[in-house]
Amino acid sequence: MVFLNKLRAIQRTKNTLLCIGLDTDSAKLPEFLKTYANPQFEFNKRIIAATKDLVCAFKINSAFYEAEGERGWSAMRQTVSELPASVISIADAKRGDIGNSSEQYARIFLEEFKFDSITVNPYMGKDSVEPFLRSPEQCAFILALTSNPGSKDFQRLKVGKKFLYEKIVETAMKWSVKKNIGFVAGATKPKELRSIRKLAPTAPLLIPGIGTQGGSVKEAVQYGCDKNGEMAIINVSRSILYASGGDDFAESARNEAIKIRDEINFWREKFFKR
Amino acid sequence: MVFLNKLRAIQRTKNTLLCIGLDTDSAKLPEFLKTYANPQFEFNKRIIAATKDLVCAFKINSAFYEAEGERGWSAMRQTVSELPASVISIADAKRGDIGNSSEQYARIFLEEFKFDSITVNPYMGKDSVEPFLRSPEQCAFILALTSNPGSKDFQRLKVGKKFLYEKIVETAMKWSVKKNIGFVAGATKPKELRSIRKLAPTAPLLIPGIGTQGGSVKEAVQYGCDKNGEMAIINVSRSILYASGGDDFAESARNEAIKIRDEINFWREKFFKR
Repeated sequence: MVFLNKLRAIQRTKNTLLCIGLDTDSAKLPEFLKTYANPQFEFNKRIIAATKDLVCAFKINSAFYEAEGERGWSAMRQTVSELPASVISIADAKRGDIGNSSEQYARIFLEEFKFDSITVNPYMGKDSVEPFLRSPEQCAFILALTSNPGSKDFQRLKVGKKFLYEKIVETAMKWSVKKNIGFVAGATKPKELRSIRKLAPTAPLLIPGIGTQGGSVKEAVQYGCDKNGEMAIINVSRSILYASGGDDFAESARNEAIKIRDEINFWREKFFKR
Repeated sequence: MVFLNKLRAIQRTKNTLLCIGLDTDSAKLPEFLKTYANPQFEFNKRIIAATKDLVCAFKINSAFYEAEGERGWSAMRQTVSELPASVISIADAKRGDIGNSSEQYARIFLEEFKFDSITVNPYMGKDSVEPFLRSPEQCAFILALTSNPGSKDFQRLKVGKKFLYEKIVETAMKWSVKKNIGFVAGATKPKELRSIRKLAPTAPLLIPGIGTQGGSVKEAVQYGCDKNGEMAIINVSRSILYASGGDDFAESARNEAIKIRDEINFWREKFFKR
């Protein structure tokens, strides 16, 4: 199924826009997991089992796996295989290089690990993004406006009458001939999120920044959704994963995920008369 | 030793600005290497042994190692350990994420693999770059103007009276309090290379684009060096690695590397009255 339809079907059937970010930090795992061969994977397995009915997607932040070297790559590989067909998988890898090198990144993340989608840094332009756009069943989420303080340094520079991130969205939309480009748009910047949604009315938006980073669920829903109250993928990482630092982490994660999913749906009812 | 001094000492002692890019593509390796446990590493080992006296740096393009999964990470790890102290190691990883995630990337590439330097994508701003700037002995090469066709899409947009890549160089220079920021500046754009050198008179410039990509050695030297004819790191990958596809690949690589090193030095003599 093409990416957009798969995402839509999942969001409708399960009635959720929540995405859990598996930023699984080895330093933060409960003690009892450390006796396993691959504690990162064991943690993920339990989080996935406890929350998979509540989310439309899981986002795997490659930084936390790479930091563990070969064992981390193995944890990433196992985690993707563990995901059920009822969720979208996102490799949050923020890759992008000359065509020849981007091909290699696409090969591992999209062909071998078979992620449904990957985040891509657009700074190097079209040929750096194209290798990630081969299949209409897989989506590239282009970084537009990120949720961190540094997003003001370059992303919000004025290019003529537009901001750089707006220019990037406009340009990348032209590359989306297979309708498989989405955008990363931080929840910490509501006004800008609205402007990205205007420029890309039907594209999936991956929205980080809720929770630890301070973005509001209300505004993420209000400005991030398409006209049907869908196509926003609202990511929460740390506040779900580490809701409890103890042995009951999976149950606590589930409770926290329910809370956020319901808050998202509360605002969807409000703004989209569903 | 701080990064700048180490680079200068190596370039002077060995009289070379050449960097070999280890874009080691598993699909292009000679047959006889395929019987080894880790063919990528075996290839690199032979290239390093055959050329280490000719270069100031080796650049390891992480894409080609990641593409091989766990075995590729192991090849990358072994390759860095194989490098002698008489060269600078560069992780060409083009990473960059919110501070929390960039920390993880810095941990594996700079702390664990102990690369002397890493390429960093600046799009996410200051907090995405800072984790790579902790030690004055290690350098972050910020992408300014890359050598690929897509570099025109965003890097050369006008921001006020400046180009975006110029704005990035200016801004990043202010972050370089430990003098450990360098820039990636493609040899395929000589005029722009000159403008980057003007904005960063003493910074190391990593210059890709010679050879397969069509950049000229003459212009890379003329516009990329500092006033002493140094601080340019001129990278060549494919035309050295695959000079011969046969069993004599290391010897052929050496011959090609000598040719390019000497061509670089010919123009250094010419332009810098050394």
